[in-house]
Amino acid sequence: MYKVYGDVYSGNCYKIKLLLSLLDMEHQWLHVNILEGETHTPEFEKMNPNARIPVLDLGNGLYLSESNAILNFLAEGTDFLPADPYNRAKVLQWQFFEQYSHEPFIATARYIKKYLGLPKDREAEYYGKQQGGHKALDIMDRQLAATTWLAGSQLTIADISLYAYTHVAEEGGFDVSGYESIGRWIGAMQRQSDYVGMS
Amino acid sequence: MYKVYGDVYSGNCYKIKLLLSLLDMEHQWLHVNILEGETHTPEFEKMNPNARIPVLDLGNGLYLSESNAILNFLAEGTDFLPADPYNRAKVLQWQFFEQYSHEPFIATARYIKKYLGLPKDREAEYYGKQQGGHKALDIMDRQLAATTWLAGSQLTIADISLYAYTHVAEEGGFDVSGYESIGRWIGAMQRQSDYVGMS
Repeated sequence: MYKVYGDVYSGNCYKIKLLLSLLDMEHQWLHVNILEGETHTPEFEKMNPNARIPVLDLGNGLYLSESNAILNFLAEGTDFLPADPYNRAKVLQWQFFEQYSHEPFIATARYIKKYLGLPKDREAEYYGKQQGGHKALDIMDRQLAATTWLAGSQLTIADISLYAYTHVAEEGGFDVSGYESIGRWIGAMQRQSDYVGMS
Repeated sequence: MYKVYGDVYSGNCYKIKLLLSLLDMEHQWLHVNILEGETHTPEFEKMNPNARIPVLDLGNGLYLSESNAILNFLAEGTDFLPADPYNRAKVLQWQFFEQYSHEPFIATARYIKKYLGLPKDREAEYYGKQQGGHKALDIMDRQLAATTWLAGSQLTIADISLYAYTHVAEEGGFDVSGYESIGRWIGAMQRQSDYVGMS
């Protein structure tokens, strides 16, 4: 059975939890507290030298890190990852967009506000994240006005990747109520059977 | 024939040029000048709403953006992308590491120094990038002390992704001479037949 090292309130970890639930795949979840430095122990850094969660432990000393790489591995051969090379690449396009143009703004703003309590010395950084976050949301909203899911007519791991921090973007100060298609898409995700929330 | 919109001095674009050369794949390269705002035209944003290069034009109105998604698409079925699901995911793990933990430090520092001339108002940001960049280089160096290439015994698109900005890291103020295994790996890449440099 796969083991996952993570914290479900981290969007990057929650992605894995959501896919495992949608796939109805048994697993063992091992909670890691990043604020207590639990990713910086020698044991953890043996699994992931980059000292970040989530980590998938496949057994036999095999580990995977980077949330989107883990999603691709778990979704291989399922409806959540298309077989056609162009459609697969479109899924990856959205996932790289998520890590470069979405997460550093929306997840980081959420972290500063929710976990650190928006301290004075990080206010400038927090407010500096708003424009980039809204740019990412706008790009998503335009795609979701044209297609049901981000990579086309089918729910894929691209949606799972971007759903994770988007559905809690408000915790980072982002009002998503103005993004009509994102609202429709969030509702559609939450109506999936075997959907599981963050808590 | 594929068309690539890019600037070879951008590491993200150079990745595509290097893979196309190693694959000996004919293509048309269309130069885009980001400093002149050429990614912010309505025509360009139709290809990539995120207004970034590179973009792969497959014809028939199909486009791909995000350098690492493009690499996965072009490498499908070749020796540069393993078929085994775990090994494929390891390649992706390094590529997501590249976009989140390497590029934002090393490529951004290079951009501030080489393209903007290290202006006073970005000095703090530039020096702030050094620690994260060295952390990424250290993680790569440890992997390359254990395996010939980043994802194992075979040169994959994970190496192409990370080579792009690593081999010009000095332009961002990073002295890589202390990373012995990275030095060996850079040399091995440059000895590949059909290797092409940035210029």
